[in-house]
Amino acid sequence: MEVTRKNFKESLNTIYSAIEEADFLAIDGEFSGISDGPSVSALTNGLDTPEERYHKLKKHSMDFLLFQFGLCTFKYEQLESKYVIKSFNFYIFPKPFNRSSPDIKFICQSSSIDFLANQGFDFNKVFRNGIPYLNQEEESQLREQFEEKRSQSNGAASLSFISPSSCKGPVSVPEEHKNFINKVVEKVEALLECSDKSVELEPCTGFQRKLIYQTLNWKYPKGLHVETMETEKKERYILISKVDDEERKRREQQKQEREQEELNDAVGFSRVIHAISKSAKLVVGHNMLLDVMHTIHQFYCPLPEDLSDFKEVTMCVFPRLLDTKLMASTQPFKEIINNTSLAELEKQLKETPFKAPKVESAEGFPSYDTATEQLHEAGYDAYITGLCFISMANYLGSFLTPPKGHISARSKLIEPFFNKLFLMRIIDIPYLNISGPDLQPKRDHVLYVTFPKEWKTSDLYQLFSAFGNIQVSWIDDTSAFVSLSQTDQVQIAMNTSRYAESYRIQTYAEYLESRQDDKQS
Amino acid sequence: MEVTRKNFKESLNTIYSAIEEADFLAIDGEFSGISDGPSVSALTNGLDTPEERYHKLKKHSMDFLLFQFGLCTFKYEQLESKYVIKSFNFYIFPKPFNRSSPDIKFICQSSSIDFLANQGFDFNKVFRNGIPYLNQEEESQLREQFEEKRSQSNGAASLSFISPSSCKGPVSVPEEHKNFINKVVEKVEALLECSDKSVELEPCTGFQRKLIYQTLNWKYPKGLHVETMETEKKERYILISKVDDEERKRREQQKQEREQEELNDAVGFSRVIHAISKSAKLVVGHNMLLDVMHTIHQFYCPLPEDLSDFKEVTMCVFPRLLDTKLMASTQPFKEIINNTSLAELEKQLKETPFKAPKVESAEGFPSYDTATEQLHEAGYDAYITGLCFISMANYLGSFLTPPKGHISARSKLIEPFFNKLFLMRIIDIPYLNISGPDLQPKRDHVLYVTFPKEWKTSDLYQLFSAFGNIQVSWIDDTSAFVSLSQTDQVQIAMNTSRYAESYRIQTYAEYLESRQDDKQS
Ligand SMILES: Nc1nc2c(ncn2[C@@H]2O[C@H](COP(=O)(O)OP(=O)(O)O)[C@@H](O)[C@H]2O)c(=O)[nH]1
Ligand SMILES: Nc1nc2c(ncn2[C@@H]2O[C@H](COP(=O)(O)OP(=O)(O)O)[C@@H](O)[C@H]2O)c(=O)[nH]1
Repeated sequence: MEVTRKNFKESLNTIYSAIEEADFLAIDGEFSGISDGPSVSALTNGLDTPEERYHKLKKHSMDFLLFQFGLCTFKYEQLESKYVIKSFNFYIFPKPFNRSSPDIKFICQSSSIDFLANQGFDFNKVFRNGIPYLNQEEESQLREQFEEKRSQSNGAASLSFISPSSCKGPVSVPEEHKNFINKVVEKVEALLECSDKSVELEPCTGFQRKLIYQTLNWKYPKGLHVETMETEKKERYILISKVDDEERKRREQQKQEREQEELNDAVGFSRVIHAISKSAKLVVGHNMLLDVMHTIHQFYCPLPEDLSDFKEVTMCVFPRLLDTKLMASTQPFKEIINNTSLAELEKQLKETPFKAPKVESAEGFPSYDTATEQLHEAGYDAYITGLCFISMANYLGSFLTPPKGHISARSKLIEPFFNKLFLMRIIDIPYLNISGPDLQPKRDHVLYVTFPKEWKTSDLYQLFSAFGNIQVSWIDDTSAFVSLSQTDQVQIAMNTSRYAESYRIQTYAEYLESRQDDKQS
Repeated sequence: MEVTRKNFKESLNTIYSAIEEADFLAIDGEFSGISDGPSVSALTNGLDTPEERYHKLKKHSMDFLLFQFGLCTFKYEQLESKYVIKSFNFYIFPKPFNRSSPDIKFICQSSSIDFLANQGFDFNKVFRNGIPYLNQEEESQLREQFEEKRSQSNGAASLSFISPSSCKGPVSVPEEHKNFINKVVEKVEALLECSDKSVELEPCTGFQRKLIYQTLNWKYPKGLHVETMETEKKERYILISKVDDEERKRREQQKQEREQEELNDAVGFSRVIHAISKSAKLVVGHNMLLDVMHTIHQFYCPLPEDLSDFKEVTMCVFPRLLDTKLMASTQPFKEIINNTSLAELEKQLKETPFKAPKVESAEGFPSYDTATEQLHEAGYDAYITGLCFISMANYLGSFLTPPKGHISARSKLIEPFFNKLFLMRIIDIPYLNISGPDLQPKRDHVLYVTFPKEWKTSDLYQLFSAFGNIQVSWIDDTSAFVSLSQTDQVQIAMNTSRYAESYRIQTYAEYLESRQDDKQS
């Protein structure tokens, strides 16, 4: 089901109940770009620490926009041994909410845009009809703005955008506006005397409107309703009406409801993420680190500086994550699955020893056909990801005695895969452990080598030719990690390099230390 | 006429001849955003110097993408006293050209995107079918790449992407590839002996292909044609064919033509700008400084650091510019025209004392109807801009004796408006003078004031209350320019401030000096 700004509100209950009833959820995001840093490979060095990788992704990927979010909910029907799914494809865009709302800037990367364009991605849906959103801080700011306006107008409802700095109490009207304000007060006095129900003032400036509100609230705390209206030409003017107590309360309440509605509209798509979060359901994704980072960054808060804080926030937002790419790269799947890219994985998981699960779209939801690929629409990718998870989970059941054909999302068998997010292209750390400390592989066979930028990989092979097989992980054009095959060669290499002038070698431990020093200074 | 990647090549001649035959050209651009800096007003301080303004625009506006370019050509038909126009609406997108081409990143500003979305802007046309482009340096790099490959393949044509660092002469084949290369040479020898015309090698790595090219070119400079082919699975392999001299030359030439074509395709939309530039025709725009800056930045070269260099480049690219917003804000129009925004201007210029010009779309070009506005499609805006120019130019003719109804784009009467680009919101400098030094208004009644960030405009009014009318131009939240109404008050203000602790005053001259110092240190 496609969800845009146009049908978002009417779809919310459908979305909420789909999440509520689900056994697990699958998600996927599409972004306006991947990396604004140097080359992708320089960004994903094979010997990054988890901290380094997190910082690189935070620095070079978060200015892109997550503009399509796929959610597929999976509910198991015991009786028919099948999953019933509801798939949602959300288009997302930070449409400025009002004059004081933030004007978000985001980066587009032409290769990513071109890639999506070739898949038939509909950019018009994003930019014309994308659902807006607010993160938590923006939401509370807006809430405070509303509350402040309310307390300021002191019962009298106001539609206008008043400077939040305006204060209560007797008003100090600047000399040049005294005349203007006095005239307004005269008009109000006249209104109170006569039988008219209301009086319209001439259009005036925002500052003058502010003075009017302050003066009238202070002088006539009850019995008046002051409201900013707009002419057809978008000029703002003030309408003052006489109201009795009951009418005043009614208007007040109406206004409060309208504001709550406006607030909800502005929070927009974030409400879906809040619902996913509150459900605490298992959330499945494929190679999902960037999806998780973007989701938190866009709909909760700017990503924290420290990896450990990021893990904490992530556990609050998504208490239970599972990454199908990591699962497929782990025992017992690792040996059987030779390509873990989503499309290939899905194909392999239909063949023995795996089995395609029985899955059906819920009534009223369009069904996806895995035979005619629609990859890279987020909703479809989320769907496929869910299928992969089910096939792999069920495969685990075949090892039980007696074997079980269906393994639920709550089974102990899949717990070993929880909260481990696949780390791309790190040689010796397969995943980021969101709910605990990360693996700390020994890297004492690794050297950090710096050299003139004219050097090529072949120069490095030459330099270390005495040590047999080496593995080079480029950092930038004047440095690389070189992994030797044996740790005891490290000392020999270090000794040989002592008098070298063109290049320099450090052990991995020395390298980490000097980085630490760099940071502190 | 809408021009995308799909019909660009077939439309080029139409575009070229429209430019060639035109009396003048009107242009307009649409961007993915305007400013990524602080508030727009902080970016456009009323007392910016032209240098400052240029630097701010360069810094905060050039990372957006010019993604729609409107060109409207105007040709006067003496006999029927009418203009015949051809209007083009180009969609532009930096689609990566090949694997080694730059992966452009650009910023989108949600308010600008939302604005265009509301006008029905078609983002899919931009991102799916936008015409690519190269700036001058990228063009020469690509040309060199082609030339290098050609000289490298030494006559034998090659489709492949060879590292540019490979050199001619006897090849040093790394030990581990010697065996592989020897086998290839054996196959070639066999081919030369037998009656087969060609032999296909197994798919191999890019490095191996490079070694094959180098070896064969060196060993068999003539008589062989070596070419990289692709299997259906996108694996690259090499095809070696025997060729006689004539066939070799024919292929060589074919290849050169193909390369020229590829180069032209990559240069893409820049060719239109080159044609406009070469034509040296008068180019009219409305409030066109950003259009000119973006055009040069995207299709010629990164903008120079210095304003004076920018002016020089601009005069090379657009030897004759005219800004209708500046024209409308200058005598004799200034007094008659009270709103110079494009839509309003166009309306006013249909009424007396002005006259809507007689204009017709050329055959085969869709006609625009100014009654049903289509503002903010670049092609339409360019058209309207041209109309405004004609009406204003013709109005100048009414002052001649005898009065003239038609004033051509070459008339002396419009020369005073050449190369002066409207400067938005600068109090005392109406335009940037592209073909000469800028105006240097006296600013000795201006004070530079710094203060605590709690201050409001009213505090400044208070502070200078003794000096009558002042004008405040905010710089940021702790500084502003304050213009006094009389220059002789400056000294008094300076004296009063000597012992002040919360704020500080400098004369404008002192301010300029200290900025100069800041720059140098
Ligand atoms: N000096 C030098 N630097 C290299 C070489 N190969 C790669 N690099 C550097 O290492 C970075 C990562 O390289 P690589 O892993 O090959 O990825 P790529 O740049 O995306 O192709 C590059 O951006 C370069 O800065 C080389 O042969 N010589
Ligand atoms: N301290 C202070 N700074 C202000 C005030 N008004 C404007 N500024 C600063 O001056 C900049 C430009 O202000 P203004 O011209 O009003 O434009 P705006 O911010 O786009 O509404 C703002 O971004 C603020 O940093 C004020 O009353 N007090």
